[in-house]
Amino acid sequence: MPVGPKATHHALRLRRLGIDTHQEAVVYMRADCDVCRAEGLMAQARVGVSLGRQSIIATLHHINGDLLRPDEAGLSEVAWLALRAHDGDVISVQHPPTLDSLSHVRSKVYGNSLDNAAFAAIMGDVAAGRYDDVHLASFVTACAGANLRRDEVIGLTKAMIDVGDRIDWGRSPIADKHCIGGLPGNRTSPIVVAIVAASGVTIPKTSSRAITSPSGTADTMETLAPVDLDEVAMRKVVDREGGCVVWGGAVRLSPADDILIRVERALDLDSEGQLVASVLSKKAAAGATHLVLDVPVGPTAKARTQQAAEGLGERLLDVAQILGIAAKILVTDGAQPVGRGIGPALEARDVLAVLRNDLAAPADLRARALRIAGALLELTASAKPGTGEAAATAILECGGAWRKFQAICEAQGGMRVPGRARHTHGITAASAGWIKSIDNRLLSRAAKVAGAPDDKTAGLELHVRLGEPVQRGQPLFTLHSETRGELAYALDYVIPRPGIIQIEPLDIVRGNARP
Amino acid sequence: MPVGPKATHHALRLRRLGIDTHQEAVVYMRADCDVCRAEGLMAQARVGVSLGRQSIIATLHHINGDLLRPDEAGLSEVAWLALRAHDGDVISVQHPPTLDSLSHVRSKVYGNSLDNAAFAAIMGDVAAGRYDDVHLASFVTACAGANLRRDEVIGLTKAMIDVGDRIDWGRSPIADKHCIGGLPGNRTSPIVVAIVAASGVTIPKTSSRAITSPSGTADTMETLAPVDLDEVAMRKVVDREGGCVVWGGAVRLSPADDILIRVERALDLDSEGQLVASVLSKKAAAGATHLVLDVPVGPTAKARTQQAAEGLGERLLDVAQILGIAAKILVTDGAQPVGRGIGPALEARDVLAVLRNDLAAPADLRARALRIAGALLELTASAKPGTGEAAATAILECGGAWRKFQAICEAQGGMRVPGRARHTHGITAASAGWIKSIDNRLLSRAAKVAGAPDDKTAGLELHVRLGEPVQRGQPLFTLHSETRGELAYALDYVIPRPGIIQIEPLDIVRGNARP
Repeated sequence: MPVGPKATHHALRLRRLGIDTHQEAVVYMRADCDVCRAEGLMAQARVGVSLGRQSIIATLHHINGDLLRPDEAGLSEVAWLALRAHDGDVISVQHPPTLDSLSHVRSKVYGNSLDNAAFAAIMGDVAAGRYDDVHLASFVTACAGANLRRDEVIGLTKAMIDVGDRIDWGRSPIADKHCIGGLPGNRTSPIVVAIVAASGVTIPKTSSRAITSPSGTADTMETLAPVDLDEVAMRKVVDREGGCVVWGGAVRLSPADDILIRVERALDLDSEGQLVASVLSKKAAAGATHLVLDVPVGPTAKARTQQAAEGLGERLLDVAQILGIAAKILVTDGAQPVGRGIGPALEARDVLAVLRNDLAAPADLRARALRIAGALLELTASAKPGTGEAAATAILECGGAWRKFQAICEAQGGMRVPGRARHTHGITAASAGWIKSIDNRLLSRAAKVAGAPDDKTAGLELHVRLGEPVQRGQPLFTLHSETRGELAYALDYVIPRPGIIQIEPLDIVRGNARP
Repeated sequence: MPVGPKATHHALRLRRLGIDTHQEAVVYMRADCDVCRAEGLMAQARVGVSLGRQSIIATLHHINGDLLRPDEAGLSEVAWLALRAHDGDVISVQHPPTLDSLSHVRSKVYGNSLDNAAFAAIMGDVAAGRYDDVHLASFVTACAGANLRRDEVIGLTKAMIDVGDRIDWGRSPIADKHCIGGLPGNRTSPIVVAIVAASGVTIPKTSSRAITSPSGTADTMETLAPVDLDEVAMRKVVDREGGCVVWGGAVRLSPADDILIRVERALDLDSEGQLVASVLSKKAAAGATHLVLDVPVGPTAKARTQQAAEGLGERLLDVAQILGIAAKILVTDGAQPVGRGIGPALEARDVLAVLRNDLAAPADLRARALRIAGALLELTASAKPGTGEAAATAILECGGAWRKFQAICEAQGGMRVPGRARHTHGITAASAGWIKSIDNRLLSRAAKVAGAPDDKTAGLELHVRLGEPVQRGQPLFTLHSETRGELAYALDYVIPRPGIIQIEPLDIVRGNARP
């Protein structure tokens, strides 16, 4: 065949439009620009975008008006950051490489099992941002429910670890903890880290910010100390103090997990295999050798029954062992929030109260932290079997944990005092009775509507516990907001939802009590 | 609980940004606007957007810069059209209603079967644009492969019909035809419609524009007559001439199908159940009572083997019968393109040559059209069994089909002469031999790169057929483009891909011929 003239090089000059699409990489180009015409690029096409040595895959949105000139292109903010772009930089745009790993996804959809190489190929493309939402959702759906066999869960977990960084601490044991599924206010990590580090065991805790909850451990910790530490800064803290509580996002641990989690949450699919891979890939990448997993059980928790929690626990233990991690499962009560505060600063106040041995500290948060810390001390053999919780209690009560926590905060960049919201409003019991149920999900949502986690001081304070008697007009919880508008909005959310905290009338309780 | 102040009404003034996101509804709002702050709306959130009596669900993209003022909002073009918006209109934005039908999708993911009510709920939300790509991909994945039982395929088909409009022609038979999966150049519809309508049988053909192919029937027909007719205009044509070939997009037939098809193509998943529902929902909604389905078999066709085509045919016949449609399956040769032209105007020229009984008309296109028309004449009892093809041939050869076609074009708004591309370039055989294979997919892609279907005259003309001998330097196909740039780009695509048309050397052919 004859050789024709070469197609021109497709270069466009960048202009920052300031459009934030969250995690979605978007490139904006004029529909009538040379690139779109020559390459036949339609709106919503996936394209490769390169700038210097960086390159990404982005979704194309066409501009018809005069937001851009034909020789200009824009990027969504996440794409702008990924390409380290500056105004006026010249990008090149081309058709993206074909996604060969999609054939494995299709194979899984048709009911076949995938081997390690297939998971490695898929996770490589996922971590590189080559899958769009449609591809991600198809993979997540195909692996949901009980659709992953044991060897597939192991293959997926290993692939997720391998496509990211892995921290080697050069020593053992490295202790870690994780709570499955989350429970409002269950902010044990800062307390556990302080106790375990004070006992001499290394515990470099990386934690997440809230995705759908009113606060992540990183959000709460940030009201007490800086958490945006990179790996070098994190190592310095851990070398000096034996522990840290930092945001994991600055370190690239199991990056595919962050991408998959967003889609899993949007679909709200239950997927034990993906949960196991998600939790253990993060922990293995963080260099953990000894791991305690807190599995709360409750009507609105990830595990709804004791049996479900134990089944999940067995799967976690099994895969952890294959990864060389010594793990222990603690099945805990997940029927109601832990502590009093829900929201970054309000939870931090609970944490401080426990660490400082305040008499008014929430007993449930303290007990949970001690149980986890004790299990970690036993697991790492720094306490004899059966003595871990007592050892943890001693470290807390003698003030060792509080001193260690302050030292860690100083090492992370300086301790802070959590703020207080400017506006509060108490919600009171409409009738007398017993606290019959607390809806964790609705309560979390109320805290978010009040402004958490973006407003650090926003959220709510819970004044009652399950089974407690209340009088009519007695405070159930107090909303905290930074602005009057947000407080009003939170009230609008709370008032038509009495099911957030259900009160059983006294006479019914008496009636039930009689056989 | 006490009643708090009411949250403010969330109103924003529209500014047209001219951003084309294809089918994705996007609303652009300042991250620091009152609505986003009060509602806690993050980028990529799904929100409800209302203007007057119209409302849609859209994806939120935040604007950080000065593209919009805090009291302004923008919309992607598809959202702008859906809301019938004008600059300065005031929209209100709120959290979208919860998507209860997602629980059915989850149930399907977990391996349960869905009943008619579940499919109705899902299709209702899909047709209303309430599902985003993640939801759509999950549904499509859960129903892929052989995951839909017979009663589920029926339930899905009925649900897809019910969420759209349905045309009642008030008479019977109403003939229709459809080709499964497409084959480049297989533009039988205009010929079949002309023959069947000329015989006195009503055949109101709605057709699609190209989605991923170089031309859809509507694109080809548009080079011969206007096709953008609404239902009223279409009825007028059919009442006068007994047939039409119009674009189905102006009529709202099985609108969920258009939404699902985009995602199915992105995933390239094989799903017999969804294919059956897609084809038959469109035909039932269009009012068809008698339907001939052309199922091409070939290495790059939807059906790869005779067996696969027959299996698919049985499923189609079964569901068609339940819908009250008399259907017939024609399994045809799909090994190579049909006719000579690939691209709107080039295919239209083939159609005209057949209708005008030109001696040089492509024999394969003519034979296929006569077979389908004959089958329709027999199915509608306007020809006796075994005589349909002869009757169709007679109508074609006497000029009746050509006169009917011209009359239909006039009724649709006036007949046109398809144009010719300004630039062409012949691709010749690099060696002598026999034509061993023609890759339909690569050939289609080459036609698209040359500019089809947006440039009506662009595409390619194929000069050889499978099994034909060729000399070195003999033309294989000719590229057609509107601009030199597109022609150069098409050559850049074609030249490194000799596999588009494979030539088997003569000596190997001779060697194989010897036992």
